[in-house]
Amino acid sequence: MKTLITNANVLDMVDEELPNVRKADILIDNNIIKKIEKDIDEEVDLKINAKNMLIMPGIVNTHTHLAMSIFRGYKDDRKLMDWLENAIFPVEDKLEPEDIYWNSYLSCLEMIRSGTTTCNDMYFGMNRTIEAIENTGLRAVVAWSITDDSIRDKLERTREYAKKYNKPNSRIKVFASPHAPYTCSPETIKLCVDLAKELNTGIHIHLSETLDEERTIKERYNKRGAEYLNDLGVLDLPVALAHGIYISDSDIEILKKIKGGISHNPISNCKLSSGICDVIKLRKNGINVGLGTDGIGSTTTLDMFEEMKTAAYLQKVNTMEPTSIKAYDILKMATIEGAKVLGLDKEIGTLEPGKKADMIFIKTDKLHLCPENDICSNIVYSANGADVDTVMIDGKVIMQNRKMINLDEKEVMRQVKKIAKRLL
Amino acid sequence: MKTLITNANVLDMVDEELPNVRKADILIDNNIIKKIEKDIDEEVDLKINAKNMLIMPGIVNTHTHLAMSIFRGYKDDRKLMDWLENAIFPVEDKLEPEDIYWNSYLSCLEMIRSGTTTCNDMYFGMNRTIEAIENTGLRAVVAWSITDDSIRDKLERTREYAKKYNKPNSRIKVFASPHAPYTCSPETIKLCVDLAKELNTGIHIHLSETLDEERTIKERYNKRGAEYLNDLGVLDLPVALAHGIYISDSDIEILKKIKGGISHNPISNCKLSSGICDVIKLRKNGINVGLGTDGIGSTTTLDMFEEMKTAAYLQKVNTMEPTSIKAYDILKMATIEGAKVLGLDKEIGTLEPGKKADMIFIKTDKLHLCPENDICSNIVYSANGADVDTVMIDGKVIMQNRKMINLDEKEVMRQVKKIAKRLL
Repeated sequence: MKTLITNANVLDMVDEELPNVRKADILIDNNIIKKIEKDIDEEVDLKINAKNMLIMPGIVNTHTHLAMSIFRGYKDDRKLMDWLENAIFPVEDKLEPEDIYWNSYLSCLEMIRSGTTTCNDMYFGMNRTIEAIENTGLRAVVAWSITDDSIRDKLERTREYAKKYNKPNSRIKVFASPHAPYTCSPETIKLCVDLAKELNTGIHIHLSETLDEERTIKERYNKRGAEYLNDLGVLDLPVALAHGIYISDSDIEILKKIKGGISHNPISNCKLSSGICDVIKLRKNGINVGLGTDGIGSTTTLDMFEEMKTAAYLQKVNTMEPTSIKAYDILKMATIEGAKVLGLDKEIGTLEPGKKADMIFIKTDKLHLCPENDICSNIVYSANGADVDTVMIDGKVIMQNRKMINLDEKEVMRQVKKIAKRLL
Repeated sequence: MKTLITNANVLDMVDEELPNVRKADILIDNNIIKKIEKDIDEEVDLKINAKNMLIMPGIVNTHTHLAMSIFRGYKDDRKLMDWLENAIFPVEDKLEPEDIYWNSYLSCLEMIRSGTTTCNDMYFGMNRTIEAIENTGLRAVVAWSITDDSIRDKLERTREYAKKYNKPNSRIKVFASPHAPYTCSPETIKLCVDLAKELNTGIHIHLSETLDEERTIKERYNKRGAEYLNDLGVLDLPVALAHGIYISDSDIEILKKIKGGISHNPISNCKLSSGICDVIKLRKNGINVGLGTDGIGSTTTLDMFEEMKTAAYLQKVNTMEPTSIKAYDILKMATIEGAKVLGLDKEIGTLEPGKKADMIFIKTDKLHLCPENDICSNIVYSANGADVDTVMIDGKVIMQNRKMINLDEKEVMRQVKKIAKRLL
């Protein structure tokens, strides 16, 4: 199947320093971008006219928990431990596989509607989340969140699904995921590292989300979190480290070598009063940083445009230097650098011939995007998820003119409301 | 003309502590809310079915510069002085009255589309901005920004327009507006105070936006900014103070008495690296705080939902206490407390019989607002301007089903693009 997109205004995200926006057509063969050039003349199966649209790579959400959509706004504005212990954990214990499916399905659709084409998910009951990802057309890295409990079962599940999914051209990839330094014994982490090596895959883990957590690790092991993970071999593997707020200078030296990177989740970090990740310092030291939402509950929306804005605002006010991070840097974090966090930068994150056809069309003839003095500023600081008109993932149009193709939004909302009514 | 809104889910914003959401009909007689109760049975001229909508008071933007829309994204991500001197000031010098009209018109429509029904504007060439406000149906407080230059003319303009507009039932109200402590001599401020007294109106002024500004005032007058304004009588009048970032404990003692309040502009303050206003401390001390966008350029969108989110995130991470401010507090700041900043809290800011019919309808049957565990959390942390379906100002429907009634968006975009092309 060949698709031709005409009249596009393409922001390819290829250049490291400066945005390259140009008028071009895009030719797609099945799920691969074949050409991006002017006036492509070729017989195709599908033509899409992208007049008044900016086309850019799909957004990459580097850390989330899809099945948590049910917790949107639930017992909000609380202290972290009060919220976890009195709101989240008791309900999580009651989540059935069917709940996981519908909750994840809603999150997948919410992400697609707001321009996210790839996510990095970690939770339990992942077989049903994978089913939702399969059915909605999203691209994802998925992982069973492993703690010291029922570890054998989760390692086996990881192995089984990795063998099934970790193949070239697969839209879904399975990582091994020890939950966090403070919830996993060294033995558990070591087992995950061994499994990741066996499967030739990456690791997804929380690191240094709160000061308390760093204190706990220090007390337990007389080490910092990054040191602890490094000593267990985690940082020698491709790794996505979620949060990374309390990173010292010595941690930075350790983290410089990592393949993958840090997933910065600014809204969750603010909403839970976790702190501000020093993105500027990490980037200056060559540590790759992507953006993520975290699960619904700690954030309230999966709209990555909100994360882009908040990331920029926090860094500018944290450094008291408005030039410290620019709109184009933020767009890189949301696309190619996010892809790099997941080890997918050879496949997605930019628009280039040979890459997977994951792209979003942003409608730009709108009041809040006029005039267009700087398209990157407009997208990062003014656009939001509702400006995403069309979404293509793996060469397939999933949403067009804001209508989901063959996906029933009403049904998933009905199901999730029913689950919320039963459990909350 | 009588209007009846049926099937509404009403968030009236009346209660100081807890949100009151209830099913009710709303009866409007011309521009006044007559009844909010169940099953109103009355002959009316217009019926609106608000099924699946939350109706709340229109949002109040307590500080902006409407005519700056042309600067959206223009030479962004720069240091304040570089940006002002090399991007903004040279272009402002070339703005023609016709430019002011179209730039303001675009801002008015952008605000209405994102749920703002009242704004507080300060700029030059305000006669043309007033015309745009008149034509778009927005409610506004307006003021000529007065510095030591051409002061007589601006005082005279203020007097002339205040006499024309400051009448009961007028949608537009004129304030006197000395620009800022650092740009106005004591004599200029005194003249503005005298004029405000003569006209029985309020003052709109910047205060303590940057640390440099506080230092300048200290050097010049050996006073803090708030002290300086107090000594000149500004704080005895109804006053809207924009920014208020560097407020000391002694300033708080001075500010406790003010009628009006502080306009907190979190996005502008982040984007220009001005600092974080300690909203929690101000509110704890009984100082009223509203939200504002500032002009486009310092912010990039006039969508007040973004300001709501950023205000909450900043306070939670600044205090490292997630309970420090809650979604309902943020909604109050965006509505009734914003109205109080402008001295309009008797007329707007809540939905109550006797008040002006300024209200917005938010469409809630959407993925990112499902499930609805806490409607205030959903609106503050997940909704955005694009979820506003219908806007009524002064009893008149300005937008319905996201369509502007008798307002030409295409034309204003065409005009503003033309101006941008000519000047930028």
